[in-house]
Amino acid sequence: MNIRPVLYVIGLFLAVLSLLMLVPALYDFLIHDPGKLAFTWSAAITLLSGLILFVCCRTKEFSLKSRQIFLLTNLTWVTLSGFAALPLWIQLDISYTDAYFETMSAITTTGSTVLSGLDSMNKGVLLWRSLLQWLGGIGFIVIAVAVLPFLKVGGMRLFQSESSDWSEKVMPRSGSIAKRIVCIYLGLTVCCAYLFFLGGMTGFEAINHAMTTLSTGGYSTSDNSMAQFSNPFIHWTATLFMLLGGLPFVQFVKFLKGDHKALTRDTQVITYVQFLLIVWGGLSIWLFTHSSYSFWEALTLVAFNTTSVVTTTGYALTDYTLWGGFAATAFFFLTFVGGCSGSTAGGIKIFRFEIGAKLLMIQLKQLAHPRACFVQNYNGQQIGSDILRSLIAFSFFFGLLVSLLTLLLSLLGLDLMTSISGAATAVANVGPGLGDIIGPAGNFASLPDSAKWLLSLGMLMGRLEVITVLVLFTPQFWKG
Amino acid sequence: MNIRPVLYVIGLFLAVLSLLMLVPALYDFLIHDPGKLAFTWSAAITLLSGLILFVCCRTKEFSLKSRQIFLLTNLTWVTLSGFAALPLWIQLDISYTDAYFETMSAITTTGSTVLSGLDSMNKGVLLWRSLLQWLGGIGFIVIAVAVLPFLKVGGMRLFQSESSDWSEKVMPRSGSIAKRIVCIYLGLTVCCAYLFFLGGMTGFEAINHAMTTLSTGGYSTSDNSMAQFSNPFIHWTATLFMLLGGLPFVQFVKFLKGDHKALTRDTQVITYVQFLLIVWGGLSIWLFTHSSYSFWEALTLVAFNTTSVVTTTGYALTDYTLWGGFAATAFFFLTFVGGCSGSTAGGIKIFRFEIGAKLLMIQLKQLAHPRACFVQNYNGQQIGSDILRSLIAFSFFFGLLVSLLTLLLSLLGLDLMTSISGAATAVANVGPGLGDIIGPAGNFASLPDSAKWLLSLGMLMGRLEVITVLVLFTPQFWKG
Repeated sequence: MNIRPVLYVIGLFLAVLSLLMLVPALYDFLIHDPGKLAFTWSAAITLLSGLILFVCCRTKEFSLKSRQIFLLTNLTWVTLSGFAALPLWIQLDISYTDAYFETMSAITTTGSTVLSGLDSMNKGVLLWRSLLQWLGGIGFIVIAVAVLPFLKVGGMRLFQSESSDWSEKVMPRSGSIAKRIVCIYLGLTVCCAYLFFLGGMTGFEAINHAMTTLSTGGYSTSDNSMAQFSNPFIHWTATLFMLLGGLPFVQFVKFLKGDHKALTRDTQVITYVQFLLIVWGGLSIWLFTHSSYSFWEALTLVAFNTTSVVTTTGYALTDYTLWGGFAATAFFFLTFVGGCSGSTAGGIKIFRFEIGAKLLMIQLKQLAHPRACFVQNYNGQQIGSDILRSLIAFSFFFGLLVSLLTLLLSLLGLDLMTSISGAATAVANVGPGLGDIIGPAGNFASLPDSAKWLLSLGMLMGRLEVITVLVLFTPQFWKG
Repeated sequence: MNIRPVLYVIGLFLAVLSLLMLVPALYDFLIHDPGKLAFTWSAAITLLSGLILFVCCRTKEFSLKSRQIFLLTNLTWVTLSGFAALPLWIQLDISYTDAYFETMSAITTTGSTVLSGLDSMNKGVLLWRSLLQWLGGIGFIVIAVAVLPFLKVGGMRLFQSESSDWSEKVMPRSGSIAKRIVCIYLGLTVCCAYLFFLGGMTGFEAINHAMTTLSTGGYSTSDNSMAQFSNPFIHWTATLFMLLGGLPFVQFVKFLKGDHKALTRDTQVITYVQFLLIVWGGLSIWLFTHSSYSFWEALTLVAFNTTSVVTTTGYALTDYTLWGGFAATAFFFLTFVGGCSGSTAGGIKIFRFEIGAKLLMIQLKQLAHPRACFVQNYNGQQIGSDILRSLIAFSFFFGLLVSLLTLLLSLLGLDLMTSISGAATAVANVGPGLGDIIGPAGNFASLPDSAKWLLSLGMLMGRLEVITVLVLFTPQFWKG
């Protein structure tokens, strides 16, 4: 395999990353904060490394094959995290492990943090964390729309109508869609920031939280996360935009092009919204009857927190684990759900549950009537055996990864609750776990370094639908 | 659907059950224990009910169709538990809920108990519990070999070589195999009892424990379970026979008919043994380095306890949850593994993991080489799309059932650990859960009644491979 073009693209990405580092540098410069130096130095190192790769690996022939795209996708996430961690490492008093964990958590839009004292922290660093989540979010949407279906990962080809002859025209077609998606993403972020500002946030807070809401990342500028803001208007705005962040952005594009039924025609959208409404209703009635909250307060808390977990954002508004055993259990399971395919949300994702449920119903009918013939359709497309295999593979790998990560974390001395919820929250890219240590009120700082590296790997694998990473570890991948 | 032949068979089963009740009655009579009355009364009621069904539903035409077999399988387990609970209810000072839970736990070879004070309990009751587990074990093997593959449940058809024209000759063929299986089951039980007796158990203890070991049930005649016996010879005997109980009994039949490679040719057997050896090795080294046990003690404890959980027996020898976070986590995951298809063990079962792993490897190879063609084989048979669908359906339903049961248990006020491990241990038919309440040192007695009914349902559904029960809840099942 020729890895020169892969490294060439990575070099290009690093150059772009170095330019982006100038945004917090500029902000720190404007507010006369010494943090600007950390960003300038990091930008210089990143640019230099990028240029070296760019120049050394320059190649005329430029067409990436399947295996090169796999490698590129993985290397992009790993390398960019490595360099994007530099400003945090230089500016803050933390180890490189912590800086890398924080960056991987940002770029995968997970939102687990090792930092505290955010309220008095260098503003450039806060902006950088939010920016990384925002970029990670849009980066993943583009990958989910343009790259993963092409690589046949995790059944995402279902959302690709012209899959057969698609490989030829991947670049021009996805390029034009990608541009429109970026515009929508940007537009929604601006709307969200404006509403946050109306709700009483400062401009800086509004922009930062808008970026981490739309990307379903969940980083905040305050240790109190969203509890810093008492206005329910802000909480409902966040709930709405987290929900939007979990929708398939390709359908937004179609919607804005005049196809007003685009969103409602996609069955995963309907299931996703229905599911959220049911969860809101059920849990808020339960909370209302099991606490001293008014129904409106209960609904606001439940809607915010469940949407935050289902869309894998991970903002904290209140420590829901204190609501009781049922809430803890419910939130544990919600960790796995995830949003729609082609959104910024992680997790198992709604469409896989839908297809699973469909298959189950057919299976049950088939058992009762062995000679009848039932067709498996999803979104008007037949579910072929290749899609089936992709789905099984994904489910198994997902389960296996969470189990293995849980075991390894417990081997490092963590208790069962911390291990299992830590593994789940990392792989599903949610953010907070359960228990005293890494729960919504806790922090990942006290975990051993090896646990942080394991969790970073888990976040990466979860973000790239597990299989995209695993394929690199097969001997076949590296053979001719 | 004509349910007369179904009820006719149930009537027949009840008559047999009433005869079996005379075994503990006779034992109590011989040792002059007043418990004989409870058994005699129960036998009379059961016989009467059986006869009523038998006479009322007598029918000349006798050929059961697919749907009738589903109904029969479910009704057999539910009804027999209902009547088999009578002696416990009459003899002991417990509610009918407790008696039913205990019986369902016995008959599904789960081994969760609500009883304490076993050491001073009426001997007939102890014998009855063991006998029920023994019968439940052999009953399930026969169902797994003769009924489930025919019903196409859970991919078990893989173990059926002549699946195409099988439906015609189901009765004679499985009848002859069933007889041989019963002989082997009985023979192994006698061997096991003899070894237990040699190890220092009384005759009564040896027979009871042999019955609950071979059936991978796990009921004991003492509150201390296997910790009552300090002789490692007994522990290793139990380990060996639990392991044997988790093997496919059809292969024993072939083996004894002279096909000496029958066991090693079945890939699930090799994987199962290899898996156990790896778990024994890994965990005992871990325990040896993290405790004051000698290596031999650590190996004995680990081998016994892991085999007990993997084969879904559920004997307790020591409270392994006190070994530390890693042990608790490991045992939690081991709960799901299960033994071989066609054995008395519950759980997800080894062959499903094997097929999952095979598919994963093919999927990874396929991603690296999209144009290559890989064949999916298991045990020399191609894995068709119908088997694939069965497997997905099983995995989804299993996961869904455990999740739903966990949620419902937590709604009843149980904590997350008790809810999730209780649901898992019931559905996988293991026995003990984790945590203070239902852990290896605990007991299910203190749970609310509704939780006991839910867990009974979970045990039933787990035993019958989930789908066999669910199919009854579809409208299609009841339509023509």
